[in-house]
Amino acid sequence: MRLSQIGELSLLEQIRTRFEKQSRTIIVGIGDDAAVVKQGDASLLVTTDMMVEGIHFDLSFTTPFQIGFKLVSVNVSDIFAMGGKPRYLLLSLAMDKNTETSFIDKFFDGVQQAIKLYGVSLIGGDLSSSKRLMSLSATLIGYTKKHIKRSGAKLGDKIYVTGTLGDSACGLILLKKIKRPIPLESYNERAQRAKSKTHRVQNNYTLLHALCSKLLEGGLSCNVVEPLLRKHLLTEARDPKEFVRYATSMIDISDGLLIDLSRLCDESKVGARIYSKKIPLSNELKEAASYLGISPIKLALSGGEDYELLFTAPANKQVKALHIGEITESERAMIDSSGKKRIFSAEGYQHFGIQR
Amino acid sequence: MRLSQIGELSLLEQIRTRFEKQSRTIIVGIGDDAAVVKQGDASLLVTTDMMVEGIHFDLSFTTPFQIGFKLVSVNVSDIFAMGGKPRYLLLSLAMDKNTETSFIDKFFDGVQQAIKLYGVSLIGGDLSSSKRLMSLSATLIGYTKKHIKRSGAKLGDKIYVTGTLGDSACGLILLKKIKRPIPLESYNERAQRAKSKTHRVQNNYTLLHALCSKLLEGGLSCNVVEPLLRKHLLTEARDPKEFVRYATSMIDISDGLLIDLSRLCDESKVGARIYSKKIPLSNELKEAASYLGISPIKLALSGGEDYELLFTAPANKQVKALHIGEITESERAMIDSSGKKRIFSAEGYQHFGIQR
Repeated sequence: MRLSQIGELSLLEQIRTRFEKQSRTIIVGIGDDAAVVKQGDASLLVTTDMMVEGIHFDLSFTTPFQIGFKLVSVNVSDIFAMGGKPRYLLLSLAMDKNTETSFIDKFFDGVQQAIKLYGVSLIGGDLSSSKRLMSLSATLIGYTKKHIKRSGAKLGDKIYVTGTLGDSACGLILLKKIKRPIPLESYNERAQRAKSKTHRVQNNYTLLHALCSKLLEGGLSCNVVEPLLRKHLLTEARDPKEFVRYATSMIDISDGLLIDLSRLCDESKVGARIYSKKIPLSNELKEAASYLGISPIKLALSGGEDYELLFTAPANKQVKALHIGEITESERAMIDSSGKKRIFSAEGYQHFGIQR
Repeated sequence: MRLSQIGELSLLEQIRTRFEKQSRTIIVGIGDDAAVVKQGDASLLVTTDMMVEGIHFDLSFTTPFQIGFKLVSVNVSDIFAMGGKPRYLLLSLAMDKNTETSFIDKFFDGVQQAIKLYGVSLIGGDLSSSKRLMSLSATLIGYTKKHIKRSGAKLGDKIYVTGTLGDSACGLILLKKIKRPIPLESYNERAQRAKSKTHRVQNNYTLLHALCSKLLEGGLSCNVVEPLLRKHLLTEARDPKEFVRYATSMIDISDGLLIDLSRLCDESKVGARIYSKKIPLSNELKEAASYLGISPIKLALSGGEDYELLFTAPANKQVKALHIGEITESERAMIDSSGKKRIFSAEGYQHFGIQR
């Protein structure tokens, strides 16, 4: 049998079963956003995430800065999703020996900007050559006094997300149409340098605007395109500190709302009811989706890589986040805009080619 | 400029400079066998090591079990080289979706046998598809009360290694001649199962013997070939517990004695004098090297992947290891068998195609 016949989730389940209960210092092992091990009176959180060329990124429309920035962000998102504070990063880079050193410099610019943003330190890693395609992997260590697992959701808890969904997936679709890297980071840096000189910001903005217009045949304004691209290319992980004390379960939305909500429900052994009217959609997503002729709600439900947090909290708590539904006993349903109930299943990205 | 024009060591140096001194909780950052961060009254050790198909292993002469076993061993070796105890493992696997699931099972058999051997627990990881070639990465976390850096060697310290050198490199040369995977692990398991039944062990041994004879045209006996292959394919990391209290500096020999000794000298800002007569060579290496028409001492000096430990200790301590030389002020010299002094430089494997 081949991997493509069993899929990522089933392989993960096999590995999890094989390596269950190895030591009593392991509080959370394989299968959550990060592992948790006992460490004095705090808990050590550890996560690892790969980015593989041709799978996670395409150099024909991603800059090396963006790859470095995102590699850090996706790992930070896993530590945040456990309620932790990220601290130490290790990087493993396998690259073709013909890679330009300027590429690597810009990659590390992205890593550096991201670790500064999150207060993380790079402490080690490994360098290797590769045959042709690049393969990048990061491990991030964090700490927490109280970790939030996927498995703590209780009947009656409310379900929340931390921001609009579908923007990243829409950004990716636009990028595939634009078919070239958009160095949003340099636009950003230029804008910052010129903070007090309004006409220079204006000039840069006009430049980006012209680029968008030309590339998308004027169908969408730069004001719409830029935030969607940014969400995909320069994702920032969400720090849960404002509501973490109330969260009963949490996961980050990396593969899509429905698949990640299903994972949370699986682990918590509960159901969920969400309301399509409550799913937060940005105005930019609505406008771009209309231009592209696709359903914005579909992107919000099944599009991956938003890296917003999805969590549950008791119904009686005042939580600073966007309420999208409630935990139920077992039924997993979405109430659509006409009030009709539809049962949902785990839709979203899965490696090795299986969708379930 | 391309990576192949600057090489692995120079890239590493650039990264190290860029990310220096980020936090006072980091005791050892980039550039040693593992990073060390303050953690209560103990120190947390963290290391990461990749294995990339076509670079670190070739499926036409390595079994999946051996890849899994070795991926754990090379990381354990880095924790041991800091004087630590390995504890928690994370794995990142990028594999083609057409990979056979039986391949993955056997890979995890190797991982499982290795983590049992070292008392390590698998606590997490990441799974991804890849285009064609496999890319594997592991991160290992360990603890120590007293860490041993590369930089502690003092003038007058004696230099030691923990075992014979060059065996792994010779095993690799033999393997490239044999041109097929040798499932040493199943020979091993069968032998263990049949411990009390001598004739069955004998039968299996005869089988392996026949295989060796046929493949190497009878030029080398199985008794010679098997340990060399085993050293390359099923390397076991060396636990330094018997001498760790005396060690002033330590590194594991992954890239070759001369390159790793040079690294230790660079970090300690000292020189070294070693004696070719004292370099430990196995009888199997001598016999196989003679058959192959190559110099066994050259393999011992520049061949990689022995994963023995190289360390220094004060001259007045009784150390259970093999003495090969002394730390000097700055000169890096080898005294050859005729008593002649030769200056050595860092010879060994470097990624991205530069040898210096």
